[in-house]
Amino acid sequence: MALDPIKHLVEQFSKLPGIGERTSWRFVLHMLSHDRELLTSLSEALVEVGQCIRECDRCHMVTTTEGLCATCASVSRDPSLICMVASIQDLMAIEATNDFRGHYHVLHGVLSPMEGIGPRDLRMESFLRRLRESEGSVKELIIATPPTVEGEATALYVAEQIKEFSLRITRIASGVPVGGDLQFADRLTLSRSLALRRGF
Amino acid sequence: MALDPIKHLVEQFSKLPGIGERTSWRFVLHMLSHDRELLTSLSEALVEVGQCIRECDRCHMVTTTEGLCATCASVSRDPSLICMVASIQDLMAIEATNDFRGHYHVLHGVLSPMEGIGPRDLRMESFLRRLRESEGSVKELIIATPPTVEGEATALYVAEQIKEFSLRITRIASGVPVGGDLQFADRLTLSRSLALRRGF
Repeated sequence: MALDPIKHLVEQFSKLPGIGERTSWRFVLHMLSHDRELLTSLSEALVEVGQCIRECDRCHMVTTTEGLCATCASVSRDPSLICMVASIQDLMAIEATNDFRGHYHVLHGVLSPMEGIGPRDLRMESFLRRLRESEGSVKELIIATPPTVEGEATALYVAEQIKEFSLRITRIASGVPVGGDLQFADRLTLSRSLALRRGF
Repeated sequence: MALDPIKHLVEQFSKLPGIGERTSWRFVLHMLSHDRELLTSLSEALVEVGQCIRECDRCHMVTTTEGLCATCASVSRDPSLICMVASIQDLMAIEATNDFRGHYHVLHGVLSPMEGIGPRDLRMESFLRRLRESEGSVKELIIATPPTVEGEATALYVAEQIKEFSLRITRIASGVPVGGDLQFADRLTLSRSLALRRGF
């Protein structure tokens, strides 16, 4: 059977994270049997995102605006404080706390030799340029990469790269989650929680 | 943040079977951070399937050809034997055995009151028309809907609908899978396997 367009579409779906060939076939056959409209609405939505969504020139968050994103262009946020995150999702999670009123920088990844992600794959060059152009107005960088092996390595790498600049470099705390149970925390988290204890 | 195109794309992905909002966001953010090309290649592949793939006029299998599919148009297959399946996937599974040389009819679903799928949602009207137009040339219908509650109900419904036609109606066998272990077969399968025992 000459179903090459179908096979090609299955291949494209398989490129999505966590999606294998089997699930991909299920997507395609579902649309063909039960929801042909989705073929059109999904393709149109993809085109729209491709056309309207770009990265902010400064912080690399996704945005619909030209030049700077709303956060970078905002006058009510503190430009002397930058929070560096690994991903768009992580930025959105921090923003959802409503506790951070500084600016951001999105690396779009963490260093991972296993997955072949090196320093050049991160938005690091542009961060150094950003610091240089800020001429000392940035006072603190909170490195909020995840507390995983890759995230910690990335944090170390970033700290190393910017040591020439005079700004405070901090790292988000890690420890037992609020509401979490000590007996179910992994050993490393508990050790970290003890080591990073603070005055009461 | 005005990220409406992203939210709209997330909604479209969420319409795929088994995909929730969380996974949907992961798809979209993955493409934005790491694979912008996929936005284009996926949308193009969707458009191509929408334009090139249609249902065969007779058996309702997907095809790239106008009118009849390759199977229906083939002169080397037996038109007196029709195998009725619930889905494109099931047809492909049977075709992969290389053991069936008859024609097919794809219902694109099974009766399921729970999911609101009634007789009108199946490609049943066209099957009755097909039988009428065959003028008795179809000798046997193998009902190969799955041996589930819905699949059995669908098989019964189909058998009831076509009792006016003089053709042999058969059902695929169900029982302990080849290579399977009796102790791990469920009770119903084992009962069925005993009830449907055959001479040695």
